[in-house]
Amino acid sequence: MSLLSIGTVAFDTIRTPYGVAEMVIGGACTYISWAASYFTKDIFIVAVIGEDFPEHELEALKNRGVNLDGLEIRKGEKSFFWEGRYHENMNSRDTLVTDLNVLADFNPVVPEKARSSKYVMLGNLTPAIQLSVLDQLDGSQKLIAMDTMNFWMDTAMDDLKKVLKRVHVLTLNDEEARQLSGEHSLVKAASAIKRMGPEILVIKKGEHGALLFTQDDLFYAPALPLADVYDPTGAGDTFAGGFMGYIARTDDYSPSGLKRAVIAGSAMASFCVEAFSIDRLRTLTDTDIIQRMQQFKNLIHFEL
Amino acid sequence: MSLLSIGTVAFDTIRTPYGVAEMVIGGACTYISWAASYFTKDIFIVAVIGEDFPEHELEALKNRGVNLDGLEIRKGEKSFFWEGRYHENMNSRDTLVTDLNVLADFNPVVPEKARSSKYVMLGNLTPAIQLSVLDQLDGSQKLIAMDTMNFWMDTAMDDLKKVLKRVHVLTLNDEEARQLSGEHSLVKAASAIKRMGPEILVIKKGEHGALLFTQDDLFYAPALPLADVYDPTGAGDTFAGGFMGYIARTDDYSPSGLKRAVIAGSAMASFCVEAFSIDRLRTLTDTDIIQRMQQFKNLIHFEL
Repeated sequence: MSLLSIGTVAFDTIRTPYGVAEMVIGGACTYISWAASYFTKDIFIVAVIGEDFPEHELEALKNRGVNLDGLEIRKGEKSFFWEGRYHENMNSRDTLVTDLNVLADFNPVVPEKARSSKYVMLGNLTPAIQLSVLDQLDGSQKLIAMDTMNFWMDTAMDDLKKVLKRVHVLTLNDEEARQLSGEHSLVKAASAIKRMGPEILVIKKGEHGALLFTQDDLFYAPALPLADVYDPTGAGDTFAGGFMGYIARTDDYSPSGLKRAVIAGSAMASFCVEAFSIDRLRTLTDTDIIQRMQQFKNLIHFEL
Repeated sequence: MSLLSIGTVAFDTIRTPYGVAEMVIGGACTYISWAASYFTKDIFIVAVIGEDFPEHELEALKNRGVNLDGLEIRKGEKSFFWEGRYHENMNSRDTLVTDLNVLADFNPVVPEKARSSKYVMLGNLTPAIQLSVLDQLDGSQKLIAMDTMNFWMDTAMDDLKKVLKRVHVLTLNDEEARQLSGEHSLVKAASAIKRMGPEILVIKKGEHGALLFTQDDLFYAPALPLADVYDPTGAGDTFAGGFMGYIARTDDYSPSGLKRAVIAGSAMASFCVEAFSIDRLRTLTDTDIIQRMQQFKNLIHFEL
């Protein structure tokens, strides 16, 4: 089934205790698309870049089955740029530079044939842009998921609430869930957030895994304990891409289908952090992914 | 099989955002014994209390199958006392008062018939006391586990290293594992700590579950997401008591047996935090525990 993904396609400069990667490929939509492309070849994106974005990177996306009709390329302008520095623990980071560039006045246009996409992943962007995309859909969607961040809770809460009312799935991290709900307990936070709209909630806890809240069910997906995390950038977007890509492939969003999709997303995120930028996502095989998902199964297996 | 447990038997005053519990029953050995008593009735303890400790609490322990021959009662002295205040998030706390009292010159004596206990849980105490207990054992033990804390790493590292060389299992929390090993990654920390002695390591991550490292295997036990945590005091000791109690009951410390024991410990800890002090541990039934362990199984269940 078709998957429509929106978000940034961008450059990042990433500083970690392991090294520096300058002006590498980044952006939520990039990570989502690469991750999803291992599960479905029917992907549309809606995004904007400047003239500076490498042609061969666009070719690489096309080769993964990503349709670029909805990618606006602005002549003479620069792509969105983010620079950040990770702390020693690799869990927290400081933003050093945010250059909006082409993103400053992005007006997303969903291509005609993408408007009936059965699955939609609204990557982290201003709620106003997410709303604009929702307005262009034809209403035939099976499952619409969104990501967001604390910045929009601080600066665009009214719009954010409007988006929340119109999506089925929200993915966000634990601190964001606490901020959005005003509840410390994630169980209470999930109940409060579900009352805002989404009936399905994925709370990402980084190295501690993820919680999936469905109608009456709660699922705890572990994270794979890793000896080395080289670059956490994009791990959450990679999760979202794997999650929605898996659902688009299986066309199954029953509770048990959603659980498998969370594991698929977690597996993809565990690859993402093994190298800078999208480098690890470029070279995966289906076998790598199947084995990694089985590793998650083994990690938590016990018999009573 | 018999279980020998050492640690504090004490009074706590606990301040949380939910309320205050003054001079309630506490202590590592208390929590360990109560938790283990749901799995085995063949428990010895080695501990010291003052004249102030209530007789009916000792009777309650006896009724749970705990042999008190190794409990020294000092006439005219006071029991160990700890007072702490939990922060809003219930994850961190400040110690307000620590009165060693009888613990200041505790010289543990293991009763003759407890020296051949097949399973031993060295609760968190000075490494010197843990060493003294080890010296009194008859060498027939099947599995010796220990708990410790960052305070001993700061003040008694030489002795702590001696204990580590003589135990099979170490339980500690994630921050302690990082401090002990000097490694941030828990995978690397576990490898470093196993080189110090214990071949089995349980890293407790509180609301994020626990990791069990055995010879070649890694197991991720989830924590049950709870709407309310009333009092985290003793949760780690309760985990240890459930873990070692389950092993003593089953006499199985194979990798799969250890995994079940981690779930048993996690289940007991999830009960512990539901009320102040040992209150929730007083009233459990076997059915409660079996159902809770099944709840852990359901929480992580998915089919690939």
